[in-house]
Amino acid sequence: MKNSTAAVFGLGSMGLGIAVSLVRAGIDTIGFDPQASRLKLFCEAGGKSVDTNTALDGIDTAVIAVLNAEQTESVLFGAEGISTKLKPGAVVLACATVSPDFAKNMARRCGEMGLHYLDAPISGGSVKAQAGELTIMASGTEAAFSLAQQALEAIAVKVFRLGDEAGAGSAIKAVNQMLAGVHIAAMAEAMIFGLSQGVSTETFLEVIPQCAGTSWMLENRAPHIVTGDYTPKSSVNIWPKDLGIVLSMAEQRNYPAPITRAALAQYLAAVDAGYGEEDDAAVAKVYASVAEVELPS
Amino acid sequence: MKNSTAAVFGLGSMGLGIAVSLVRAGIDTIGFDPQASRLKLFCEAGGKSVDTNTALDGIDTAVIAVLNAEQTESVLFGAEGISTKLKPGAVVLACATVSPDFAKNMARRCGEMGLHYLDAPISGGSVKAQAGELTIMASGTEAAFSLAQQALEAIAVKVFRLGDEAGAGSAIKAVNQMLAGVHIAAMAEAMIFGLSQGVSTETFLEVIPQCAGTSWMLENRAPHIVTGDYTPKSSVNIWPKDLGIVLSMAEQRNYPAPITRAALAQYLAAVDAGYGEEDDAAVAKVYASVAEVELPS
Repeated sequence: MKNSTAAVFGLGSMGLGIAVSLVRAGIDTIGFDPQASRLKLFCEAGGKSVDTNTALDGIDTAVIAVLNAEQTESVLFGAEGISTKLKPGAVVLACATVSPDFAKNMARRCGEMGLHYLDAPISGGSVKAQAGELTIMASGTEAAFSLAQQALEAIAVKVFRLGDEAGAGSAIKAVNQMLAGVHIAAMAEAMIFGLSQGVSTETFLEVIPQCAGTSWMLENRAPHIVTGDYTPKSSVNIWPKDLGIVLSMAEQRNYPAPITRAALAQYLAAVDAGYGEEDDAAVAKVYASVAEVELPS
Repeated sequence: MKNSTAAVFGLGSMGLGIAVSLVRAGIDTIGFDPQASRLKLFCEAGGKSVDTNTALDGIDTAVIAVLNAEQTESVLFGAEGISTKLKPGAVVLACATVSPDFAKNMARRCGEMGLHYLDAPISGGSVKAQAGELTIMASGTEAAFSLAQQALEAIAVKVFRLGDEAGAGSAIKAVNQMLAGVHIAAMAEAMIFGLSQGVSTETFLEVIPQCAGTSWMLENRAPHIVTGDYTPKSSVNIWPKDLGIVLSMAEQRNYPAPITRAALAQYLAAVDAGYGEEDDAAVAKVYASVAEVELPS
Protein backbone atom coordinates (compact mmCIF):
# COMPACT_ATOMS: atom_id res chain seq x y z
CA MET A 1 0.00 0.00 0.00
CA LYS A 2 1.36 3.37 -1.05
CA ASN A 3 2.05 5.75 1.81
CA SER A 4 -0.28 8.71 1.53
CA THR A 5 0.63 12.35 1.93
CA ALA A 6 -0.66 14.61 4.69
CA ALA A 7 -0.69 18.22 5.77
CA VAL A 8 -1.29 19.32 9.36
CA PHE A 9 -2.69 22.79 10.00
CA GLY A 10 -1.91 23.99 13.51
CA LEU A 11 1.18 22.69 15.31
CA GLY A 12 0.11 23.38 18.88
CA SER A 13 0.49 20.76 21.61
CA MET A 14 -2.01 18.46 19.90
CA GLY A 15 -1.23 19.25 16.24
CA LEU A 16 2.52 18.85 16.67
CA GLY A 17 2.03 15.43 18.23
CA ILE A 18 -0.31 14.43 15.42
CA ALA A 19 2.14 15.65 12.76
CA VAL A 20 5.06 13.83 14.36
CA SER A 21 2.99 10.64 14.61
CA LEU A 22 2.17 10.85 10.90
CA VAL A 23 5.88 11.26 10.03
CA ARG A 24 6.74 8.30 12.27
CA ALA A 25 4.21 6.17 10.40
CA GLY A 26 6.03 6.88 7.12
CA ILE A 27 3.46 9.37 5.83
CA ASP A 28 5.00 12.27 3.88
CA THR A 29 3.77 15.16 6.03
CA ILE A 30 4.02 18.92 5.81
CA GLY A 31 3.09 21.24 8.66
CA PHE A 32 1.70 24.76 8.89
CA ASP A 33 1.59 27.12 11.81
CA PRO A 34 1.67 30.91 12.10
CA GLN A 35 4.38 30.60 14.78
CA ALA A 36 7.89 29.95 13.43
CA SER A 37 8.91 28.34 16.75
CA ARG A 38 6.26 25.63 16.30
CA LEU A 39 7.38 24.95 12.71
CA LYS A 40 10.94 24.67 13.96
CA LEU A 41 9.92 22.02 16.53
CA PHE A 42 8.22 20.02 13.79
CA CYS A 43 11.27 20.22 11.48
CA GLU A 44 13.52 19.10 14.34
CA ALA A 45 11.26 16.07 14.71
CA GLY A 46 11.74 15.15 11.05
CA GLY A 47 8.85 17.05 9.50
CA LYS A 48 8.80 19.41 6.57
CA SER A 49 7.56 22.96 6.74
CA VAL A 50 6.74 24.82 3.58
CA ASP A 51 5.30 28.25 3.01
CA THR A 52 1.56 28.64 2.73
CA ASN A 53 1.71 29.30 -1.03
CA THR A 54 2.87 25.75 -1.64
CA ALA A 55 0.58 23.82 -3.88
CA LEU A 56 -1.54 21.46 -1.79
CA ASP A 57 -2.84 19.42 -4.71
CA GLY A 58 -0.57 16.50 -3.85
CA ILE A 59 -2.07 16.13 -0.36
CA ASP A 60 -4.35 13.17 0.37
CA THR A 61 -5.22 14.01 3.99
CA ALA A 62 -5.54 17.45 5.58
CA VAL A 63 -5.61 17.43 9.37
CA ILE A 64 -6.98 20.60 10.97
CA ALA A 65 -5.72 20.72 14.54
CA VAL A 66 -6.52 24.29 15.49
CA LEU A 67 -8.16 25.70 18.61
CA ASN A 68 -11.79 26.26 17.70
CA ALA A 69 -14.53 26.59 15.08
CA GLU A 70 -13.47 30.06 13.94
CA GLN A 71 -9.93 28.89 13.17
CA THR A 72 -11.21 25.72 11.51
CA GLU A 73 -13.43 27.75 9.20
CA SER A 74 -10.58 30.15 8.45
CA VAL A 75 -8.20 27.30 7.52
CA LEU A 76 -10.82 25.81 5.19
CA PHE A 77 -12.62 28.83 3.75
CA GLY A 78 -10.67 31.96 4.74
CA ALA A 79 -8.78 34.23 2.32
CA GLU A 80 -5.99 31.65 2.09
CA GLY A 81 -8.42 28.77 2.65
CA ILE A 82 -7.26 25.30 1.66
CA SER A 83 -10.64 24.15 0.30
CA THR A 84 -9.78 25.66 -3.08
CA LYS A 85 -6.20 24.31 -3.04
CA LEU A 86 -6.76 20.66 -2.14
CA LYS A 87 -7.51 18.24 -4.94
CA PRO A 88 -11.05 16.88 -5.21
CA GLY A 89 -11.23 13.57 -3.38
CA ALA A 90 -8.88 14.60 -0.57
CA VAL A 91 -10.13 14.07 2.98
CA VAL A 92 -10.25 16.69 5.72
CA LEU A 93 -9.89 15.52 9.35
CA ALA A 94 -11.34 18.24 11.56
CA CYS A 95 -10.05 17.75 15.14
CA ALA A 96 -11.11 20.87 17.08
CA THR A 97 -13.94 20.75 19.60
CA VAL A 98 -16.86 22.38 17.76
CA SER A 99 -20.64 22.18 17.80
CA PRO A 100 -22.34 19.42 15.77
CA ASP A 101 -24.12 22.08 13.70
CA PHE A 102 -20.79 23.65 12.79
CA ALA A 103 -19.36 20.25 11.83
CA LYS A 104 -22.39 19.55 9.60
CA ASN A 105 -22.00 22.94 7.96
CA MET A 106 -18.28 22.39 7.26
CA ALA A 107 -18.98 18.91 5.88
CA ARG A 108 -21.63 20.26 3.52
CA ARG A 109 -19.40 23.08 2.26
CA CYS A 110 -16.43 20.73 1.84
CA GLY A 111 -18.69 18.35 -0.07
CA GLU A 112 -19.58 21.17 -2.44
CA MET A 113 -15.85 21.52 -3.21
CA GLY A 114 -15.49 17.78 -3.86
CA LEU A 115 -13.73 17.20 -0.51
CA HIS A 116 -14.51 14.48 2.02
CA TYR A 117 -14.93 15.57 5.63
CA LEU A 118 -14.41 13.55 8.77
CA ASP A 119 -15.83 15.05 11.96
CA ALA A 120 -12.94 13.84 14.14
CA PRO A 121 -12.59 15.50 17.54
CA ILE A 122 -9.80 14.06 19.65
CA SER A 123 -9.29 13.17 23.30
CA GLY A 124 -6.15 12.29 25.19
CA GLY A 125 -3.85 15.27 25.73
CA SER A 126 -0.48 16.21 24.30
CA VAL A 127 1.46 13.21 25.66
CA LYS A 128 -0.83 10.78 23.89
CA ALA A 129 -0.81 12.95 20.77
CA GLN A 130 2.99 12.67 20.64
CA ALA A 131 2.78 8.89 21.12
CA GLY A 132 0.19 8.45 18.35
CA GLU A 133 -2.23 7.16 20.98
CA LEU A 134 -5.13 9.56 20.77
CA THR A 135 -8.77 8.61 21.05
CA ILE A 136 -10.85 9.92 18.15
CA MET A 137 -14.63 10.29 18.20
CA ALA A 138 -15.31 10.23 14.50
CA SER A 139 -18.30 10.40 12.21
CA GLY A 140 -18.53 10.78 8.45
CA THR A 141 -19.16 8.88 5.26
CA GLU A 142 -17.72 5.45 4.55
CA ALA A 143 -15.54 7.11 1.89
CA ALA A 144 -14.17 9.66 4.38
CA PHE A 145 -13.29 6.92 6.87
CA SER A 146 -11.66 4.84 4.17
CA LEU A 147 -9.54 7.71 2.85
CA ALA A 148 -8.51 8.74 6.38
CA GLN A 149 -7.71 5.24 7.58
CA GLN A 150 -3.93 5.37 7.27
CA ALA A 151 -3.74 8.72 9.08
CA LEU A 152 -6.16 7.56 11.78
CA GLU A 153 -4.05 4.48 12.42
CA ALA A 154 -0.96 6.67 12.75
CA ILE A 155 -2.38 9.09 15.31
CA ALA A 156 -4.93 7.11 17.31
CA VAL A 157 -5.01 4.04 19.48
CA LYS A 158 -8.81 4.05 19.40
CA VAL A 159 -11.20 5.37 16.77
CA PHE A 160 -14.90 5.37 17.65
CA ARG A 161 -17.03 5.20 14.48
CA LEU A 162 -20.11 7.11 15.49
CA GLY A 163 -22.14 7.16 12.32
CA ASP A 164 -22.05 8.25 8.70
CA GLU A 165 -22.86 11.91 9.25
CA ALA A 166 -20.64 14.73 10.47
CA GLY A 167 -21.89 16.05 13.83
CA ALA A 168 -22.19 12.76 15.74
CA GLY A 169 -18.49 12.85 16.62
CA SER A 170 -18.73 16.43 17.85
CA ALA A 171 -21.87 15.60 19.87
CA ILE A 172 -20.17 12.92 21.96
CA LYS A 173 -17.05 15.06 22.24
CA ALA A 174 -19.25 17.76 23.79
CA VAL A 175 -20.63 15.17 26.24
CA ASN A 176 -17.08 14.17 27.16
CA GLN A 177 -15.95 17.79 27.61
CA MET A 178 -18.97 18.51 29.79
CA LEU A 179 -17.92 15.71 32.14
CA ALA A 180 -14.19 16.43 31.98
CA GLY A 181 -14.72 20.13 32.74
CA VAL A 182 -17.08 19.38 35.63
CA HIS A 183 -14.74 16.75 37.07
CA ILE A 184 -11.69 19.05 37.19
CA ALA A 185 -13.64 21.80 38.93
CA ALA A 186 -15.32 19.28 41.28
CA MET A 187 -11.90 17.86 42.15
CA ALA A 188 -10.74 21.37 43.06
CA GLU A 189 -13.93 22.07 45.03
CA ALA A 190 -13.47 18.84 47.01
CA MET A 191 -9.73 19.18 47.53
CA ILE A 192 -10.00 22.70 48.96
CA PHE A 193 -13.08 21.68 50.97
CA GLY A 194 -10.88 18.94 52.41
CA LEU A 195 -8.05 21.40 53.15
CA SER A 196 -10.51 23.63 55.01
CA GLN A 197 -11.46 20.55 57.10
CA GLY A 198 -7.88 19.57 57.88
CA VAL A 199 -7.42 16.99 55.10
CA SER A 200 -4.02 17.60 53.50
CA THR A 201 -3.68 17.55 49.71
CA GLU A 202 -1.34 14.55 50.12
CA THR A 203 -3.96 12.60 52.08
CA PHE A 204 -6.57 13.53 49.44
CA LEU A 205 -4.30 12.17 46.72
CA GLU A 206 -3.53 9.02 48.71
CA VAL A 207 -7.12 8.13 49.57
CA ILE A 208 -9.60 9.42 46.98
CA PRO A 209 -8.15 7.71 43.86
CA GLN A 210 -8.79 4.40 45.66
CA CYS A 211 -12.39 5.30 46.53
CA ALA A 212 -15.70 5.74 44.74
CA GLY A 213 -15.18 9.50 44.48
CA THR A 214 -12.41 9.23 41.92
CA SER A 215 -12.44 10.30 38.28
CA TRP A 216 -10.01 10.16 35.38
CA MET A 217 -9.51 13.92 35.60
CA LEU A 218 -9.01 13.81 39.36
CA GLU A 219 -6.21 11.28 39.04
CA ASN A 220 -4.65 13.27 36.19
CA ARG A 221 -4.95 16.81 37.58
CA ALA A 222 -4.88 16.53 41.40
CA PRO A 223 -1.10 15.81 41.36
CA HIS A 224 -0.55 19.22 39.72
CA ILE A 225 -2.03 20.89 42.80
CA VAL A 226 -0.16 18.67 45.26
CA THR A 227 3.17 19.52 43.59
CA GLY A 228 2.18 23.15 42.91
CA ASP A 229 3.07 22.76 39.23
CA TYR A 230 0.74 24.74 36.98
CA THR A 231 2.80 24.44 33.80
CA PRO A 232 -0.04 24.24 31.28
CA LYS A 233 -0.60 20.78 29.84
CA SER A 234 -4.13 21.97 29.13
CA SER A 235 -4.96 25.52 30.14
CA VAL A 236 -7.80 27.09 32.12
CA ASN A 237 -8.67 29.04 28.96
CA ILE A 238 -9.84 25.85 27.25
CA TRP A 239 -12.83 25.51 29.57
CA PRO A 240 -14.78 28.72 29.02
CA LYS A 241 -14.47 27.85 25.32
CA ASP A 242 -15.47 24.17 25.55
CA LEU A 243 -18.13 24.52 28.25
CA GLY A 244 -19.39 27.54 26.31
CA ILE A 245 -19.93 25.29 23.28
CA VAL A 246 -21.61 22.67 25.48
CA LEU A 247 -23.97 25.17 27.14
CA SER A 248 -24.82 26.86 23.87
CA MET A 249 -25.76 23.45 22.41
CA ALA A 250 -27.82 22.75 25.54
CA GLU A 251 -29.60 26.10 25.35
CA GLN A 252 -30.68 25.45 21.79
CA ARG A 253 -32.60 22.45 23.17
CA ASN A 254 -33.80 24.42 26.24
CA TYR A 255 -31.79 21.98 28.37
CA PRO A 256 -30.59 23.43 31.65
CA ALA A 257 -27.28 21.99 32.76
CA PRO A 258 -26.90 23.45 36.24
CA ILE A 259 -23.82 21.52 37.34
CA THR A 260 -21.96 22.39 34.14
CA ARG A 261 -22.99 26.02 34.56
CA ALA A 262 -21.64 26.05 38.12
CA ALA A 263 -18.33 24.60 36.89
CA LEU A 264 -18.08 27.18 34.10
CA ALA A 265 -18.48 29.97 36.67
CA GLN A 266 -15.39 28.69 38.49
CA TYR A 267 -13.29 28.67 35.29
CA LEU A 268 -14.48 32.19 34.43
CA ALA A 269 -13.45 33.30 37.93
CA ALA A 270 -10.05 31.68 37.36
CA VAL A 271 -9.59 33.53 34.05
CA ASP A 272 -10.73 36.76 35.70
CA ALA A 273 -8.13 36.25 38.45
CA GLY A 274 -5.38 35.96 35.82
CA TYR A 275 -4.92 32.17 35.73
CA GLY A 276 -6.16 31.66 32.15
CA GLU A 277 -2.79 30.62 30.74
CA GLU A 278 -2.00 28.24 33.62
CA ASP A 279 -2.79 24.54 33.78
CA ASP A 280 -6.51 24.00 34.28
CA ALA A 281 -5.85 22.59 37.75
CA ALA A 282 -5.32 26.26 38.69
CA VAL A 283 -9.10 26.54 39.04
CA ALA A 284 -8.23 25.31 42.56
CA LYS A 285 -6.70 28.75 43.23
CA VAL A 286 -10.15 30.32 43.03
CA TYR A 287 -11.43 27.95 45.69
CA ALA A 288 -8.31 28.39 47.85
CA SER A 289 -8.68 32.16 47.74
CA VAL A 290 -12.29 31.99 48.96
CA ALA A 291 -11.42 29.40 51.61
CA GLU A 292 -8.35 31.37 52.67
CA VAL A 293 -6.16 28.28 52.68
CA GLU A 294 -2.64 27.91 51.30
CA LEU A 295 -2.01 25.60 48.36
CA PRO A 296 1.32 23.78 48.00
CA SER A 297 3.79 25.83 45.93
CA MET B 1 -4.63 -15.59 68.74
CA LYS B 2 -8.03 -15.88 70.36
CA ASN B 3 -10.93 -14.96 68.09
CA SER B 4 -12.66 -11.90 69.48
CA THR B 5 -16.40 -11.37 69.80
CA ALA B 6 -18.39 -8.76 67.93
CA ALA B 7 -21.83 -7.22 67.79
CA VAL B 8 -23.18 -5.43 64.72
CA PHE B 9 -25.91 -2.80 65.20
CA GLY B 10 -27.84 -2.25 61.99
CA LEU B 11 -28.18 -5.06 59.46
CA GLY B 12 -28.97 -2.98 56.39
CA SER B 13 -27.21 -3.57 53.08
CA MET B 14 -23.87 -2.51 54.56
CA GLY B 15 -24.29 -3.82 58.10
CA LEU B 16 -25.44 -7.26 57.00
CA GLY B 17 -22.40 -7.62 54.75
CA ILE B 18 -20.13 -6.53 57.58
CA ALA B 19 -21.77 -8.98 60.03
CA VAL B 20 -21.50 -11.87 57.56
CA SER B 21 -17.85 -11.02 56.89
CA LEU B 22 -17.12 -11.11 60.64
CA VAL B 23 -18.78 -14.54 60.95
CA ARG B 24 -16.81 -15.80 57.94
CA ALA B 25 -13.57 -14.70 59.64
CA GLY B 26 -14.40 -16.89 62.65
CA ILE B 27 -15.42 -14.03 64.91
CA ASP B 28 -18.31 -14.89 67.24
CA THR B 29 -20.82 -12.26 66.09
CA ILE B 30 -24.30 -11.23 67.16
CA GLY B 31 -26.52 -8.90 65.15
CA PHE B 32 -29.22 -6.38 66.03
CA ASP B 33 -31.80 -4.75 63.80
CA PRO B 34 -35.32 -3.45 64.43
CA GLN B 35 -36.52 -5.37 61.35
CA ALA B 36 -37.07 -9.11 61.90
CA SER B 37 -36.53 -9.77 58.18
CA ARG B 38 -32.98 -8.42 58.40
CA LEU B 39 -32.22 -10.52 61.49
CA LYS B 40 -33.54 -13.57 59.64
CA LEU B 41 -31.17 -12.92 56.70
CA PHE B 42 -28.25 -12.73 59.11
CA CYS B 43 -29.24 -15.98 60.88
CA GLU B 44 -29.56 -17.73 57.50
CA ALA B 45 -26.00 -16.62 56.77
CA GLY B 46 -24.74 -18.26 59.97
CA GLY B 47 -25.09 -15.35 62.35
CA LYS B 48 -26.72 -15.18 65.77
CA SER B 49 -29.50 -12.80 66.67
CA VAL B 50 -30.35 -12.17 70.27
CA ASP B 51 -32.79 -9.82 71.88
CA THR B 52 -31.65 -6.36 72.87
CA ASN B 53 -31.68 -7.17 76.58
CA THR B 54 -28.82 -9.61 76.11
CA ALA B 55 -25.79 -8.76 78.16
CA LEU B 56 -23.18 -7.17 75.94
CA ASP B 57 -20.35 -7.38 78.45
CA GLY B 58 -18.71 -10.25 76.54
CA ILE B 59 -18.38 -8.18 73.36
CA ASP B 60 -14.94 -6.95 72.30
CA THR B 61 -15.94 -5.00 69.20
CA ALA B 62 -19.22 -3.14 68.58
CA VAL B 63 -19.79 -2.16 64.96
CA ILE B 64 -22.40 0.56 64.43
CA ALA B 65 -23.59 0.32 60.83
CA VAL B 66 -26.68 2.52 60.93
CA LEU B 67 -27.82 5.24 58.54
CA ASN B 68 -26.78 8.50 60.16
CA ALA B 69 -25.57 10.46 63.18
CA GLU B 70 -28.95 10.43 64.94
CA GLN B 71 -29.14 6.63 64.81
CA THR B 72 -25.49 6.29 65.84
CA GLU B 73 -26.09 8.46 68.90
CA SER B 74 -29.24 6.51 69.73
CA VAL B 75 -27.44 3.15 69.56
CA LEU B 76 -24.69 4.44 71.85
CA PHE B 77 -26.48 6.76 74.25
CA GLY B 78 -30.24 6.32 73.75
CA ALA B 79 -32.64 4.80 76.30
CA GLU B 80 -31.33 1.32 75.43
CA GLY B 81 -27.87 2.68 74.62
CA ILE B 82 -25.01 0.19 74.51
CA SER B 83 -22.45 2.51 76.08
CA THR B 84 -23.59 1.43 79.54
CA LYS B 85 -23.75 -2.28 78.59
CA LEU B 86 -20.38 -2.80 76.92
CA LYS B 87 -17.43 -3.65 79.12
CA PRO B 88 -14.78 -0.97 79.64
CA GLY B 89 -12.00 -1.49 77.12
CA ALA B 90 -14.31 -2.58 74.30
CA VAL B 91 -13.93 -0.77 70.98
CA VAL B 92 -16.72 0.91 69.01
CA LEU B 93 -16.40 1.06 65.22
CA ALA B 94 -18.67 3.85 63.99
CA CYS B 95 -19.32 3.38 60.25
CA ALA B 96 -22.05 5.88 59.32
CA THR B 97 -21.25 9.02 57.34
CA VAL B 98 -21.30 11.78 59.97
CA SER B 99 -19.66 15.16 60.49
CA PRO B 100 -16.17 15.24 62.03
CA ASP B 101 -17.53 17.28 64.96
CA PHE B 102 -20.11 14.58 65.67
CA ALA B 103 -17.41 11.88 65.53
CA LYS B 104 -15.24 13.85 67.97
CA ASN B 105 -18.19 14.25 70.30
CA MET B 106 -19.01 10.53 70.24
CA ALA B 107 -15.35 9.63 70.82
CA ARG B 108 -15.17 11.93 73.84
CA ARG B 109 -18.39 10.56 75.37
CA CYS B 110 -17.32 6.96 74.71
CA GLY B 111 -13.98 7.74 76.32
CA GLU B 112 -15.81 8.94 79.44
CA MET B 113 -17.45 5.49 79.63
CA GLY B 114 -14.09 3.71 79.29
CA LEU B 115 -14.80 2.71 75.67
CA HIS B 116 -12.45 3.10 72.72
CA TYR B 117 -13.87 4.74 69.60
CA LEU B 118 -12.76 4.34 66.02
CA ASP B 119 -14.10 6.91 63.55
CA ALA B 120 -14.47 4.40 60.72
CA PRO B 121 -16.68 5.48 57.81
CA ILE B 122 -16.81 2.95 54.99
CA SER B 123 -16.82 3.07 51.21
CA GLY B 124 -17.55 0.39 48.66
CA GLY B 125 -21.23 -0.53 48.49
CA SER B 126 -23.17 -3.61 49.54
CA VAL B 127 -21.43 -6.08 47.20
CA LYS B 128 -18.02 -5.27 48.68
CA ALA B 129 -19.49 -5.30 52.17
CA GLN B 130 -20.70 -8.88 51.61
CA ALA B 131 -17.27 -9.86 50.28
CA GLY B 132 -15.41 -8.34 53.23
CA GLU B 133 -13.71 -5.96 50.80
CA LEU B 134 -14.73 -2.55 52.06
CA THR B 135 -12.51 0.48 52.16
CA ILE B 136 -12.40 2.13 55.58
CA MET B 137 -11.28 5.70 56.23
CA ALA B 138 -10.35 5.39 59.88
CA SER B 139 -8.96 7.60 62.60
CA GLY B 140 -8.58 7.04 66.31
CA THR B 141 -6.09 6.18 69.00
CA GLU B 142 -3.43 3.54 68.62
CA ALA B 143 -5.34 1.47 71.20
CA ALA B 144 -8.59 1.72 69.23
CA PHE B 145 -6.87 0.57 66.03
CA SER B 146 -5.17 -2.27 67.84
CA LEU B 147 -8.38 -3.53 69.46
CA ALA B 148 -10.30 -3.25 66.17
CA GLN B 149 -7.63 -4.90 64.03
CA GLN B 150 -9.16 -8.36 63.75
CA ALA B 151 -12.58 -6.96 62.81
CA LEU B 152 -11.04 -4.49 60.34
CA GLU B 153 -9.17 -7.31 58.62
CA ALA B 154 -12.42 -9.28 58.35
CA ILE B 155 -14.47 -6.53 56.72
CA ALA B 156 -12.02 -4.41 54.75
CA VAL B 157 -9.57 -4.88 51.93
CA LYS B 158 -8.08 -1.44 52.63
CA VAL B 159 -7.92 0.54 55.86
CA PHE B 160 -6.62 4.10 55.62
CA ARG B 161 -5.12 5.21 58.94
CA LEU B 162 -5.83 8.92 58.95
CA GLY B 163 -4.54 10.00 62.31
CA ASP B 164 -4.96 9.43 66.00
CA GLU B 165 -8.05 11.55 66.54
CA ALA B 166 -11.69 10.80 65.69
CA GLY B 167 -12.95 13.20 63.01
CA ALA B 168 -10.17 12.80 60.42
CA GLY B 169 -11.83 9.68 59.00
CA SER B 170 -15.18 11.42 58.73
CA ALA B 171 -13.56 14.48 57.12
CA ILE B 172 -12.12 12.52 54.19
CA LYS B 173 -15.32 10.49 53.93
CA ALA B 174 -17.17 13.79 53.46
CA VAL B 175 -14.70 14.76 50.71
CA ASN B 176 -15.31 11.41 49.01
CA GLN B 177 -19.11 11.74 49.28
CA MET B 178 -18.96 15.26 47.85
CA LEU B 179 -17.21 13.91 44.76
CA ALA B 180 -19.29 10.73 44.48
CA GLY B 181 -22.56 12.67 44.73
CA VAL B 182 -21.44 15.26 42.18
CA HIS B 183 -20.20 12.58 39.79
CA ILE B 184 -23.47 10.62 39.72
CA ALA B 185 -25.50 13.77 39.04
CA ALA B 186 -22.95 15.00 36.46
CA MET B 187 -23.14 11.62 34.72
CA ALA B 188 -26.92 12.00 34.52
CA GLU B 189 -26.64 15.60 33.32
CA ALA B 190 -24.22 14.58 30.57
CA MET B 191 -26.05 11.42 29.54
CA ILE B 192 -29.37 13.22 29.07
CA PHE B 193 -27.58 16.15 27.40
CA GLY B 194 -26.18 13.57 24.99
CA LEU B 195 -29.63 12.04 24.42
CA SER B 196 -31.00 15.46 23.58
CA GLN B 197 -28.19 15.79 21.01
CA GLY B 198 -28.82 12.39 19.43
CA VAL B 199 -26.21 10.42 21.39
CA SER B 200 -27.81 7.15 22.51
CA THR B 201 -27.28 5.89 26.05
CA GLU B 202 -25.53 2.84 24.55
CA THR B 203 -23.07 5.05 22.65
CA PHE B 204 -22.46 7.06 25.83
CA LEU B 205 -21.67 3.87 27.71
CA GLU B 206 -19.44 2.57 24.93
CA VAL B 207 -17.38 5.74 24.48
CA ILE B 208 -17.16 7.80 27.67
CA PRO B 209 -15.67 5.14 30.01
CA GLN B 210 -12.71 5.03 27.60
CA CYS B 211 -12.27 8.81 27.57
CA ALA B 212 -11.08 11.53 29.92
CA GLY B 213 -14.66 12.29 31.00
CA THR B 214 -15.07 9.07 32.93
CA SER B 215 -15.44 8.56 36.68
CA TRP B 216 -15.79 5.61 39.01
CA MET B 217 -19.42 6.51 39.64
CA LEU B 218 -20.14 6.92 35.93
CA GLU B 219 -18.86 3.44 35.18
CA ASN B 220 -20.80 2.01 38.12
CA ARG B 221 -24.12 3.84 37.69
CA ALA B 222 -24.53 4.62 33.97
CA PRO B 223 -25.33 0.94 33.20
CA HIS B 224 -28.37 1.20 35.52
CA ILE B 225 -29.81 3.87 33.22
CA VAL B 226 -28.93 2.02 30.02
CA THR B 227 -30.72 -1.11 31.28
CA GLY B 228 -33.51 0.87 32.96
CA ASP B 229 -32.89 -0.97 36.24
CA TYR B 230 -33.42 1.28 39.25
CA THR B 231 -33.44 -1.48 41.89
CA PRO B 232 -31.75 0.41 44.70
CA LYS B 233 -28.15 -0.61 45.34
CA SER B 234 -27.74 2.82 46.89
CA SER B 235 -30.81 5.04 46.92
CA VAL B 236 -31.46 8.64 45.87
CA ASN B 237 -32.38 9.34 49.51
CA ILE B 238 -28.74 8.88 50.56
CA TRP B 239 -27.65 12.03 48.76
CA PRO B 240 -29.72 14.78 50.37
CA LYS B 241 -28.44 13.30 53.65
CA ASP B 242 -24.75 12.99 52.70
CA LEU B 243 -24.48 16.19 50.64
CA GLY B 244 -26.40 17.90 53.44
CA ILE B 245 -23.66 16.86 55.88
CA VAL B 246 -21.00 18.04 53.42
CA LEU B 247 -22.61 21.43 52.82
CA SER B 248 -23.28 21.98 56.49
CA MET B 249 -19.59 21.32 57.20
CA ALA B 250 -18.67 23.71 54.38
CA GLU B 251 -21.01 26.43 55.66
CA GLN B 252 -19.39 26.31 59.08
CA ARG B 253 -16.16 27.37 57.36
CA ASN B 254 -17.97 29.88 55.09
CA TYR B 255 -16.89 27.74 52.15
CA PRO B 256 -19.21 27.95 49.16
CA ALA B 257 -19.37 24.70 47.21
CA PRO B 258 -21.42 25.72 44.18
CA ILE B 259 -21.04 22.51 42.15
CA THR B 260 -22.04 20.36 45.13
CA ARG B 261 -25.01 22.64 45.78
CA ALA B 262 -26.13 22.30 42.15
CA ALA B 263 -25.90 18.50 42.44
CA LEU B 264 -27.88 18.49 45.69
CA ALA B 265 -30.67 20.43 43.98
CA GLN B 266 -31.01 17.63 41.42
CA TYR B 267 -31.29 14.94 44.12
CA LEU B 268 -33.88 17.01 45.99
CA ALA B 269 -35.86 17.33 42.76
CA ALA B 270 -35.62 13.54 42.35
CA VAL B 271 -36.92 12.96 45.88
CA ASP B 272 -39.68 15.50 45.27
CA ALA B 273 -40.67 13.64 42.09
CA GLY B 274 -41.05 10.40 44.08
CA TYR B 275 -37.76 8.65 43.17
CA GLY B 276 -36.24 8.73 46.67
CA GLU B 277 -36.37 4.97 47.22
CA GLU B 278 -34.99 4.13 43.77
CA ASP B 279 -31.35 3.62 42.84
CA ASP B 280 -29.51 6.93 42.85
CA ALA B 281 -29.04 6.70 39.08
CA ALA B 282 -32.73 7.70 38.99
CA VAL B 283 -31.57 11.30 39.35
CA ALA B 284 -31.38 10.95 35.54
CA LYS B 285 -35.20 10.91 35.46
CA VAL B 286 -35.26 14.54 36.61
CA TYR B 287 -33.05 15.53 33.69
CA ALA B 288 -34.99 13.37 31.24
CA SER B 289 -38.26 14.98 32.31
CA VAL B 290 -36.91 18.49 31.69
CA ALA B 291 -35.33 17.46 28.38
CA GLU B 292 -38.50 15.61 27.33
CA VAL B 293 -36.52 12.56 26.23
CA GLU B 294 -37.34 8.92 26.88
CA LEU B 295 -35.01 6.84 29.03
CA PRO B 296 -34.60 3.09 28.38
CA SER B 297 -37.05 1.05 30.45
